[in-house]
Amino acid sequence: MTRIEVLQEEMMKNNWDVLMVQTQPNVFYLSGFNADPHERLLGMVIFKDAAPMLICPNMEVNQIKEIFTQGMIIGYTDSENPWAKVESYIDDNNLSTNNIALESSISWSRLEEWKKIAPDAHFSEADSLLLKQRVIKSPEEITYLEEAAALADEGIQTGIDSLKEGITEMEVIAAIEYALKRKGVREMSFSPMVLFGEKAGDPHGNPGARKLKKGDGVLFDLGVMWKGYASDITRTVFFDHVNEEQQQIYDTVLAALHNALDLVKPGQKIGTLDTAARETITEAGYGEFFPHRIGHGLGIEVHEFPSMNAENTDLLQAGMTFTIEPGIYVPDKSGVRIEDDILVTEDGARSLTSYPKELTIIPAEK
Amino acid sequence: MTRIEVLQEEMMKNNWDVLMVQTQPNVFYLSGFNADPHERLLGMVIFKDAAPMLICPNMEVNQIKEIFTQGMIIGYTDSENPWAKVESYIDDNNLSTNNIALESSISWSRLEEWKKIAPDAHFSEADSLLLKQRVIKSPEEITYLEEAAALADEGIQTGIDSLKEGITEMEVIAAIEYALKRKGVREMSFSPMVLFGEKAGDPHGNPGARKLKKGDGVLFDLGVMWKGYASDITRTVFFDHVNEEQQQIYDTVLAALHNALDLVKPGQKIGTLDTAARETITEAGYGEFFPHRIGHGLGIEVHEFPSMNAENTDLLQAGMTFTIEPGIYVPDKSGVRIEDDILVTEDGARSLTSYPKELTIIPAEK
Repeated sequence: MTRIEVLQEEMMKNNWDVLMVQTQPNVFYLSGFNADPHERLLGMVIFKDAAPMLICPNMEVNQIKEIFTQGMIIGYTDSENPWAKVESYIDDNNLSTNNIALESSISWSRLEEWKKIAPDAHFSEADSLLLKQRVIKSPEEITYLEEAAALADEGIQTGIDSLKEGITEMEVIAAIEYALKRKGVREMSFSPMVLFGEKAGDPHGNPGARKLKKGDGVLFDLGVMWKGYASDITRTVFFDHVNEEQQQIYDTVLAALHNALDLVKPGQKIGTLDTAARETITEAGYGEFFPHRIGHGLGIEVHEFPSMNAENTDLLQAGMTFTIEPGIYVPDKSGVRIEDDILVTEDGARSLTSYPKELTIIPAEK
Repeated sequence: MTRIEVLQEEMMKNNWDVLMVQTQPNVFYLSGFNADPHERLLGMVIFKDAAPMLICPNMEVNQIKEIFTQGMIIGYTDSENPWAKVESYIDDNNLSTNNIALESSISWSRLEEWKKIAPDAHFSEADSLLLKQRVIKSPEEITYLEEAAALADEGIQTGIDSLKEGITEMEVIAAIEYALKRKGVREMSFSPMVLFGEKAGDPHGNPGARKLKKGDGVLFDLGVMWKGYASDITRTVFFDHVNEEQQQIYDTVLAALHNALDLVKPGQKIGTLDTAARETITEAGYGEFFPHRIGHGLGIEVHEFPSMNAENTDLLQAGMTFTIEPGIYVPDKSGVRIEDDILVTEDGARSLTSYPKELTIIPAEK
């Protein structure tokens, strides 16, 4: 069954006549076409018992035709109203619109367009259905995620190789992105983060012109988009030497990661991972310096379902992919985070990122 | 008056009790704090007659405090419900919520949160007010846009300097981004586009491993984010030599740009710019190969209000900034686009981007 057919079967069960997706990740997941239409509408309208329609800017039609063959492709120009075309398709094919399911992130204004097309419709949120389908990765998706993760490993290696006294955070970022772009990476999965010394004490720090000094910790957080899939890795190394407190923090974070990772297997409650890592960090006396959840789902989006927080009582299933990324941030002093991309296997876990995690001191003189 | 006070005055006129913004550009415009909170809520709630509240993830509180001093900052952890905190603030301060204005792009699910907080409220779209305020750039904003444009010029220069037989599109992109990142550019305003030869015949082409050959046109489209503001420039040059058709297309596109640019002054109807450029291109016989509008507003977002399409009857005003970017794309053959960032001045126009636009042939042997 195609992904669309799986959805149509679920639509039958829910008695939904129409399901529209119009966010880039879901349109990509269902059509294979991956593009940011900016403010323009790029959406797929799926019907319980008719061929889906893909509505897109005219200038995308040729590219989409090569990729999407399971339904109608309808283009519109900048001076046409795409919603009128959706309405015509529905009218021409005499399709029912009593029950319409939409992404909960759909904008208020687009919701109003649907209310104009179908004033008496009942609207439902389609999210859980789409998330449930996307959360289990296919073998092909896992291959892309592995490739994305391997490129993230290379990004860490490039960053570490570039370290020398006096280099700035932004220069290291430039070197990392240069190497990855030359390998054909079109986009990073987010703006890479490289933070030196006290700058890493802010979990959302801003890289800048801070120069590398002996004794600094260096935190790298980066990932790529590859064939539509994201990676996300964090490593922290030390330049020239490490002091006792840095070492203790590093050991604590690494132990927290392992304690969470050890729990990963199908059937495990998601929240237990956060709890286990948090206990390790709290017992070491750094509980207040771990202000974020243990991780997030990873796939077409760098942050996606599920949220790996302590309150999540959902169960892990084979084929899920997510990050585990404990951290300790001592404001104005230093920060350590270690992050891997994890796949749940039939009997445990496999890490897609594989850059070494032992405490590493980068010599100042090479 | 501060930007928030200007809005509060407009809220009075509209009889709005509450106005919430929760998109990154509007939150930045009103608070000075610029960050992508991903799926988390980062919003500013403005009241007709009380101090605004800024609701944000806990880990952003410290950074925001340094920037935003005109209201309350309320943080929440990943396990707290931010909307409960919005509701408490309203209850504790006994604020009225009869009329609530929201961005039309707010998600359906966030709209539902507001309906829970204020079940009897009347909801209005705040967009036009915010857009009207943002569309006229302050002198400080113009300075940032100038700096962003100068960096885009440098990106073009770097790209041109890197051209040599056999180099790939992605290698040129890597060189451009490397140079800009080293100058402290944290983010490009979009994934840079470098397209060789027939690849440029698709207005939304995908750069890849295509190698540069003598006689290719080379289309560069790139921009940076700088101090929160975007630039966006396109240049097309020719490698080694140019044929007659390429030259004719180039001359047509350049003439179209000048014909649109000549019309720019306060009071001019926006749509006339597209019409003038389109006429030039149509008269030269390429009308069907110019499938997009002449440009888009530019500021905190690389695509923002106003849309520079033929049907737009709004008038240009001094302080507006936007792109002018005519193009001709002959599928599977070649493409030319030339794009500048334009500021409307008191008596005409000023181009913020300034890389030369004369037809340029890059020698294959340097």
